[in-house]
Amino acid sequence: MIHINENYQKLQASYLFANIAKRVREYQDENPGRELIRMGIGDVTQPLPEACVTAMHKAVDELTRAETFRGYGPEQGYDFLREAIAKHDFQARGADIAADEVFVSDGAKCDTGNIQELFAGDIRVAIPDPVYPVYVDTNVMAGRTGAPQDGRYPGLVYLECTPANGYVPALPTQPVDLIYLCFPNNPTGATITRAQLKTWVDYARTNKALILYDAAYEAFIRDPELPHSIYEIEGAQDVAIEFRSFSKTAGFTGVRCAYAVVPKRCMAYTTGGAAVSVRDLWSRRHTTKFNGVSYPVQRAAEAVFSPEGSRQVRGLIDHYLTNAAYVRQAFQRMGFECVGGDNSPYIWVRSERDSWGFFDFLLKEAGVVCTPGAGFGRCGENHIRISAFNSFENVQKAMQRIADALKK
Amino acid sequence: MIHINENYQKLQASYLFANIAKRVREYQDENPGRELIRMGIGDVTQPLPEACVTAMHKAVDELTRAETFRGYGPEQGYDFLREAIAKHDFQARGADIAADEVFVSDGAKCDTGNIQELFAGDIRVAIPDPVYPVYVDTNVMAGRTGAPQDGRYPGLVYLECTPANGYVPALPTQPVDLIYLCFPNNPTGATITRAQLKTWVDYARTNKALILYDAAYEAFIRDPELPHSIYEIEGAQDVAIEFRSFSKTAGFTGVRCAYAVVPKRCMAYTTGGAAVSVRDLWSRRHTTKFNGVSYPVQRAAEAVFSPEGSRQVRGLIDHYLTNAAYVRQAFQRMGFECVGGDNSPYIWVRSERDSWGFFDFLLKEAGVVCTPGAGFGRCGENHIRISAFNSFENVQKAMQRIADALKK
Repeated sequence: MIHINENYQKLQASYLFANIAKRVREYQDENPGRELIRMGIGDVTQPLPEACVTAMHKAVDELTRAETFRGYGPEQGYDFLREAIAKHDFQARGADIAADEVFVSDGAKCDTGNIQELFAGDIRVAIPDPVYPVYVDTNVMAGRTGAPQDGRYPGLVYLECTPANGYVPALPTQPVDLIYLCFPNNPTGATITRAQLKTWVDYARTNKALILYDAAYEAFIRDPELPHSIYEIEGAQDVAIEFRSFSKTAGFTGVRCAYAVVPKRCMAYTTGGAAVSVRDLWSRRHTTKFNGVSYPVQRAAEAVFSPEGSRQVRGLIDHYLTNAAYVRQAFQRMGFECVGGDNSPYIWVRSERDSWGFFDFLLKEAGVVCTPGAGFGRCGENHIRISAFNSFENVQKAMQRIADALKK
Repeated sequence: MIHINENYQKLQASYLFANIAKRVREYQDENPGRELIRMGIGDVTQPLPEACVTAMHKAVDELTRAETFRGYGPEQGYDFLREAIAKHDFQARGADIAADEVFVSDGAKCDTGNIQELFAGDIRVAIPDPVYPVYVDTNVMAGRTGAPQDGRYPGLVYLECTPANGYVPALPTQPVDLIYLCFPNNPTGATITRAQLKTWVDYARTNKALILYDAAYEAFIRDPELPHSIYEIEGAQDVAIEFRSFSKTAGFTGVRCAYAVVPKRCMAYTTGGAAVSVRDLWSRRHTTKFNGVSYPVQRAAEAVFSPEGSRQVRGLIDHYLTNAAYVRQAFQRMGFECVGGDNSPYIWVRSERDSWGFFDFLLKEAGVVCTPGAGFGRCGENHIRISAFNSFENVQKAMQRIADALKK
């Protein structure tokens, strides 16, 4: 008899955004005339940068002639893209990352979901709360937790991000082996300073732990004091994997391209204590279970690093950051405490209300869709996430509607 | 201390095609002037069908305007593609598959590699020999085997495909829960009749086993008696998942699009014996660890089903089948026994020589790269796989060179 992986049955309810979509659909069925402004899911809204479009058309045309046709590419990505990434995203910032430490993929969601396969079933996993649900759910599926109790999974160490610590978690008080960090943070928009990040790298080095550093929102950092990559911290190459994406940077959420950096110096250990190259393990997984990113997509990603491409991408990010600042200031004027929105497209708004209640209030009274903080974990209660991915006009309208609804 | 998944250390050597690439590179470094004809890896060589190119350009252009821009799509694929697949690939052949049973992905390699995650760690897995290495390696990584002994993994049930059974395996003599089948087969090119396939479906139904049916080469079937889909067999929807790909059909190896069919009726069981929908499990995995296929790629795939697209694809396949028939006949004239090459792009050539020896002979004496059968499992010994993905001119030249080398 074919038996299921029963860990799947421990997963709580369904996926957060599916739940939101359901509530929105139900509301719209009941109120067909009502125009909604969606500031919930972190999906971009602006067109692709022209440089990317041009590169993609050109690459598609190459596939129309036998002489320039390309079939299977290297699973890890084409050298042209790996080299551009290593040079522009790391070496230019003083981080000594080589092209063969860059693994191109079709999404940071996939990478952050798949990476845990490389590690033992009984490692101790530390996960921020609130958190992007994929980190938790993929560890549940892999059997590293018990069944949920009061919304939390026994077996995980929760790193609480609260108003008290400025939404940057303290080091764990119990030993952990695998640590998920995300800065600029999704969902809170909080950032981490160089000194704070150094305490995590030092912790990992001392305890032979490994940090999974999700920097998908790196392009939104404008404060020159903030680190863009964990590899700007000395010693991080021994203990950290970094995830990046073109999704939010260049509007690739529908185009699909991301990458993981796994330095050659990064090690994990057998039960006997022998060091094993994590890069070699990831390479083996990547070549066995993945077949590379679409060639035209890789050319589009390469174009992000051209002079026009980087100018256009900066323009895109500027647009969203203008929205984000507007949202943050509007909520602050309405009397809410906020974090994020300056080096991040997300604004994390604190409220007296419970977060699904605030979600429903904004949906029904203002016609604005946000993301309820509780969907990201217990510490997300009494918060909502507002995303700046929208037109400036919609952002203004949404903030006005919320202000009006609160005055009712 | 961060511990590795030690199952990775059980994996034998490195991936087959990486080994071949290394031997070829070494030979070329020593013989820089020698022009090689590559008939090894199953990669297509002909340009993309024009209908797909047109659709892809159009979709890229949609991403250049805010009004038509698309960000995240549904993880399972856009309805336009899922509906086209259900209609043309299944309903048109009398198989009652609905659009919401189709899950679009970026590759059949990914799907066949990832699907085993849904099932328990202690299920009994039956895998053909010879076999596409991904089925084996992903089960090794998941810990369903011991360390290899004499080239085989304890814990797997090997379904031997030999000249004696016409390369279609017999039912296992010991109980199994998960069964990998691939027809038209990679690497052998063998096909399965309706009656033979029915014995497997009946076996699975009787034993509550599950069949993973890899039909990535379905488009090469021209014999009207052969089943294209396992769902042409009555009762298969209860016990089978089918994998398809646009890679070999429409030349998408570099473009990346495939799909899995998981019928609503397909069930697996808890240890307590309760039935669980496999479709729901796969949907949960797909939405948690994957973010959908690139939008322009999905439009290109949709175009495969248009009148022009399907005509162009048929032309592509005809081209490769002409090559395949030529290769098969040439080897038969040279005195070799062969299977495949009529409803498949692969020709499986039997030889007295050991297969890596035959590989080296063809590389060094004829300048032709094939795939050594032993790389696909013990039963691949004394065989090589020749792929028809090439120009007809190269195929003729390769066969002439091999004939000449054998006469030396």
